[in-house]
Amino acid sequence: MAHINLNNDLPGIRGPMAYRPETEKPLNALAEVLLRDDNNTLTRGERELIATYTSYLNDCFFCQNVHGAIAGYYLGCDINQIDAIKNDPSVSADVSPKMKALLTIARSVQKGGKSVTADQIEKAKNEGASEVEIHDTVLIAAAFCMFNRYVDGLATWAPQDRQIYIDRAPQRAVEGYQGSIFK
Amino acid sequence: MAHINLNNDLPGIRGPMAYRPETEKPLNALAEVLLRDDNNTLTRGERELIATYTSYLNDCFFCQNVHGAIAGYYLGCDINQIDAIKNDPSVSADVSPKMKALLTIARSVQKGGKSVTADQIEKAKNEGASEVEIHDTVLIAAAFCMFNRYVDGLATWAPQDRQIYIDRAPQRAVEGYQGSIFK
Repeated sequence: MAHINLNNDLPGIRGPMAYRPETEKPLNALAEVLLRDDNNTLTRGERELIATYTSYLNDCFFCQNVHGAIAGYYLGCDINQIDAIKNDPSVSADVSPKMKALLTIARSVQKGGKSVTADQIEKAKNEGASEVEIHDTVLIAAAFCMFNRYVDGLATWAPQDRQIYIDRAPQRAVEGYQGSIFK
Repeated sequence: MAHINLNNDLPGIRGPMAYRPETEKPLNALAEVLLRDDNNTLTRGERELIATYTSYLNDCFFCQNVHGAIAGYYLGCDINQIDAIKNDPSVSADVSPKMKALLTIARSVQKGGKSVTADQIEKAKNEGASEVEIHDTVLIAAAFCMFNRYVDGLATWAPQDRQIYIDRAPQRAVEGYQGSIFK
């Protein structure tokens, strides 16, 4: 049971979002522009992977499964491949050198902003990451430090069957974060 | 120097916001509704105090000074009183029992969503906090875990003279988070 009465039985972040539509709007708008905007040189799958990895590091079951399933859908990875990436992206054959460097930055952001080092930034640039891609990596990781705390700080419930998230990923990928999945 | 070339010399979060207006909009919209919306039973000063305390716990110099100065402006507290609250709100004569309970929740959110306990929620309710106030406390603290990481994860610069933040607080209080201060 959630810490407060959300007046709905929606899972994860959908519960408090429906409870408080005033804050739902900018939160969804942020997720939409960060994760789905077409004007971005990181693919949707790569951005969902940054969200997934951050949510894993924050131990947020709902977010890491929602976004892990969507990342897997976009990237053509099954749940075992996504789990392996979460566990250690640096050794995964499914992750490019550039994405490995960006996920290292995301891991530092999860610990705290000051954990990001000039060496990590340099490494990402050397692997071909643009400055906008580095910006977006930092902000996606930071944003999921918010979303994860919002979900777990209110003790929302989440389906425990991970297949549910996988089954819903294609629909979520189509609908995005402004659409009916949050209504 | 920031980790990436932001193409401007604006301080703190204003730098990356001006660099990436696509993400600036939802970030400012979120700050505006969370911290300033009039349809809220927490005063603007109380909400700014939650933002300040979270930013202090995250060791974000820019955010704790911007929002600390605005909180002080609204609450009629000088910088020494704000500093004392940040150091330990539980013993401050300037903080109501309800706000002490809400700041305890914010402190847990800063550590991680799962750190929030049912006892902390119960205590806040017993001190008169509504469920919406608890929701907003969790989301404000979570949001500043994002803003703080955004500011420090990109190694933005900030004026070191704390008086600058105090001097600008009245204008910021009038202009809010959608207005010219971020342009």
